[in-house]
Amino acid sequence: MLILLTNDDGISAPGLLAIYRELTQLGDVHVVAPETVQSATGHGVTLSAPLLTSQVQIDIDAHGQPIVGTAIGGRPADCVKLAVNQILPRKPDLVVSGINSGANVGINVIYSGTVAAAIEAAFLGLPAIAVSLLLRSTVPTDYARAARDTIPVIKDLLAKGLSPGDVASINLPALLPDQPAAPAKYCRQCTQPWVDTYDKRLDPRGKPYYWNSSVFKLGNTEADTDVAFLRDGYTTVTPLQFDLTQHALLMKWAK
Amino acid sequence: MLILLTNDDGISAPGLLAIYRELTQLGDVHVVAPETVQSATGHGVTLSAPLLTSQVQIDIDAHGQPIVGTAIGGRPADCVKLAVNQILPRKPDLVVSGINSGANVGINVIYSGTVAAAIEAAFLGLPAIAVSLLLRSTVPTDYARAARDTIPVIKDLLAKGLSPGDVASINLPALLPDQPAAPAKYCRQCTQPWVDTYDKRLDPRGKPYYWNSSVFKLGNTEADTDVAFLRDGYTTVTPLQFDLTQHALLMKWAK
Repeated sequence: MLILLTNDDGISAPGLLAIYRELTQLGDVHVVAPETVQSATGHGVTLSAPLLTSQVQIDIDAHGQPIVGTAIGGRPADCVKLAVNQILPRKPDLVVSGINSGANVGINVIYSGTVAAAIEAAFLGLPAIAVSLLLRSTVPTDYARAARDTIPVIKDLLAKGLSPGDVASINLPALLPDQPAAPAKYCRQCTQPWVDTYDKRLDPRGKPYYWNSSVFKLGNTEADTDVAFLRDGYTTVTPLQFDLTQHALLMKWAK
Repeated sequence: MLILLTNDDGISAPGLLAIYRELTQLGDVHVVAPETVQSATGHGVTLSAPLLTSQVQIDIDAHGQPIVGTAIGGRPADCVKLAVNQILPRKPDLVVSGINSGANVGINVIYSGTVAAAIEAAFLGLPAIAVSLLLRSTVPTDYARAARDTIPVIKDLLAKGLSPGDVASINLPALLPDQPAAPAKYCRQCTQPWVDTYDKRLDPRGKPYYWNSSVFKLGNTEADTDVAFLRDGYTTVTPLQFDLTQHALLMKWAK
């Protein structure tokens, strides 16, 4: 199995290396990822500037050989487009994006570069999986453990049938070393509205500027959503789509 | 009616000014738009940097008074968040994004900053409309005319009922001055896959880089889609959603 691995935290991110090491169990893993951090870039693409590339050694494998990937001076979605179109030896059998530093549940699904990479792969007719890890200040972040816990979920998805154009978004809870792997819940994206907060400040010349000061919390929401299950300690799996048509409203308006 | 007007082509774009002039028929229009061009930035947001703001005179109105807007050093979605949260005197009754330079149909809906601004407004519980104009090399681009043709479509949407959280994406064909306004078709987003092309080049030191050389064409597709109707000279109206859950697949996987 040829696997394309990308992310939005950049090619040097620890979450990418951790899932790389585990994915080698499943196939031949090719890394094509953004050169720099691309968090919250959503589904941006680079159309009017060139995409610069470089070969980057990410680490050393179990046999002492270098793990080398291609860094792209662009967005996560650019990495998928370019990898599939130009860089990989053939069309990948699976595209994995992650492990993202931070959960991508609820409204964050829309902002996430990690998810955008997986959705881009789905457009291109490939099966795709986004993987994100909840961060908690009280639990040390352990990507290696998260990556180990991800593999059975991916195997389960492949067994259920992840077809070309399907996207699964996996979110893992933050677990202490002695906690067992969390059971997986297949669930929907929470679509509750989100209330932003901004700090208004003045620059040295008295002109206002603003910082987004929102803190995303896994709060109260409908029990059957990704936000609720992740909050309750489950691993969540949500199938995503790129058909943005609101079909029910279309039927109403078209009358 | 208090209307927030934004876009992704930047506060100085001619499409924004054209629709501003027409929207004043419908209410009090406040412009909060990106300082610079933000095409194809998708649903990116600015979380780890400050958003700088400035007051910009866009033009002069019919009474010789300056038309002033707020320019934000950020993404289209940032403009909506910040406008609603901090800049407008109260919650707007309608958010309009555009007129975009170029159509946003088919797969481009996902990349579009114009559409992302409207979807962001919908999250925030507001009714929102994205407006985009097809560009054709054989037809002079006339935003003023496109803006005039947009107003009846917006009025029709308001009459049908554009509720908080609803998003309508309007795409206008490129028309010659003597052609009548195009009839509106309510239709779905085309989700056909898209084939990218890239030019591979070598930098002066022999390292490869790539330019996306894809040209989006309104080609053959299913007859009931935005791509097909826009190609055939209609104005298209597509309701959009921000629930990305693929519900049919969820039912299958959850079994």
